[in-house]
Amino acid sequence: MPFGDDMAAVDAADAQLLWTTDMLMDGVDFDSRRHGWRAIGRKAMSVNLSDCAAMAARPVAALCAVALQDRLAMDDALELFAGVREQGARFGCPVVGGDTNSWAAPTAIAVTVAARAAGRPVLRSGAQPGDVLHVSGALGGSILGRHLTFEPRVKLAAALVDHVRPRAMIDISDGLAVDLGHLLDESGCAAELDDELLEAAVHEDARRLAAEDGRSAVEHALTDGEDFELLAALPPDAPAEALAALGMLRLGRVVPGAGEIWRCGRDGRRAQLARRGWEHFR
Amino acid sequence: MPFGDDMAAVDAADAQLLWTTDMLMDGVDFDSRRHGWRAIGRKAMSVNLSDCAAMAARPVAALCAVALQDRLAMDDALELFAGVREQGARFGCPVVGGDTNSWAAPTAIAVTVAARAAGRPVLRSGAQPGDVLHVSGALGGSILGRHLTFEPRVKLAAALVDHVRPRAMIDISDGLAVDLGHLLDESGCAAELDDELLEAAVHEDARRLAAEDGRSAVEHALTDGEDFELLAALPPDAPAEALAALGMLRLGRVVPGAGEIWRCGRDGRRAQLARRGWEHFR
Repeated sequence: MPFGDDMAAVDAADAQLLWTTDMLMDGVDFDSRRHGWRAIGRKAMSVNLSDCAAMAARPVAALCAVALQDRLAMDDALELFAGVREQGARFGCPVVGGDTNSWAAPTAIAVTVAARAAGRPVLRSGAQPGDVLHVSGALGGSILGRHLTFEPRVKLAAALVDHVRPRAMIDISDGLAVDLGHLLDESGCAAELDDELLEAAVHEDARRLAAEDGRSAVEHALTDGEDFELLAALPPDAPAEALAALGMLRLGRVVPGAGEIWRCGRDGRRAQLARRGWEHFR
Repeated sequence: MPFGDDMAAVDAADAQLLWTTDMLMDGVDFDSRRHGWRAIGRKAMSVNLSDCAAMAARPVAALCAVALQDRLAMDDALELFAGVREQGARFGCPVVGGDTNSWAAPTAIAVTVAARAAGRPVLRSGAQPGDVLHVSGALGGSILGRHLTFEPRVKLAAALVDHVRPRAMIDISDGLAVDLGHLLDESGCAAELDDELLEAAVHEDARRLAAEDGRSAVEHALTDGEDFELLAALPPDAPAEALAALGMLRLGRVVPGAGEIWRCGRDGRRAQLARRGWEHFR
């Protein structure tokens, strides 16, 4: 990735520019013994695009800094860059600069993405008691493959802003319980999740993992990381048909409180949930 | 470094925003066995600020993504972040976001800086035959310590734009010969460097290294990396007093050609220079 000058220009003539950076490391966020370099490159871009989705922002350009393990073949490095570029291009986000290095340690990749908000960006802090909580897709078990191949919800976020202005949003990277906790902390609220709705939002991958490890599928849905689905707090009058058409799954509601997450059983009892997140795979 | 949302906002209501990213790796760009973490953090910011200087741009905000070696003490990590933040603050460049990770491999740090150009940014590609070549300080031997402690030439670059509009500029990160080569390639020109002027631009550190390793001090000045001084092609009528007042040192001139670099001896003979850059220390 050769670039002609020391810095890359981003045309920002009008609005506030948002930007985000995420670093992925071999053996932590991907495993180069098992995953292809093109897929790894796509993930390095996608995790940043998912941040854009979380704020309903439109990505405009990216930078890519890498520390390549020095025994990495040139073809593999080119595959990595191709994956970063391709995934960016699919979202109108060209890679306009970067920094390429090599060293003896495992490969690390830091992509930075700049984006423009559609109007005011959707923050984590806008949720209010009475809001309904929705996710953009089924949760849990992403380690079986979706953590590499997920589709950043950029277009869905734009549609959400058009149809039902979200009050608060976050992408689920550390697990539903942890990231819902972040949203609640920023908003100064608590949440109730209905067991029945949670069970309907469990991904098939979570069931497969549960069958192997003896934990429940709902527990996987609550605590597994890297779903990269959107979690949104929506006004209570958000039209149900529009949400269903967008594939949104209802989980529960925002209630007064200080960050607590309650699970509500079919019998009407509620129990407080411990916040736990994803552990990096080894 | 906790941040409340997935992305960091950069107000860019008016002009083109420039941005740059550089990744520094332990054992390559710094050595945590010898260098303090605060100084390492400062360097991680400074190398990006030096890119801003190269384009005469004013830094406005930064992101910092890190992969911390997992045995790193919390105090050391805090020192690292303090160094990044402090050096940014000195240049009006607050750290507004980032991504903090840990792993078993050595520490890697990727800082991204956004900046605004003063008018049109100064590119590498504007040099013309007849331009004079200047550097912003003495060169060579930075590995003795200046590679960690150098002052990014942000203010000097702004003064240069005010006094003598540079036609082309680059910061010397890979060594004078290599980076002059980049500038010449982008501009489609060649250069002549006068031995007498080169000798006057040799840093004391280059002489110390030369005394140890038997290479000449001028060779160190030509090929050592990480000087982080500015190399500028200036119009031939640039006022000499203003340049001297800014501490600029003349090295030679731009001539017609295709990227060649010639050394001109006191006897009038000239010899073509091989392009060689800095080798990362081990």
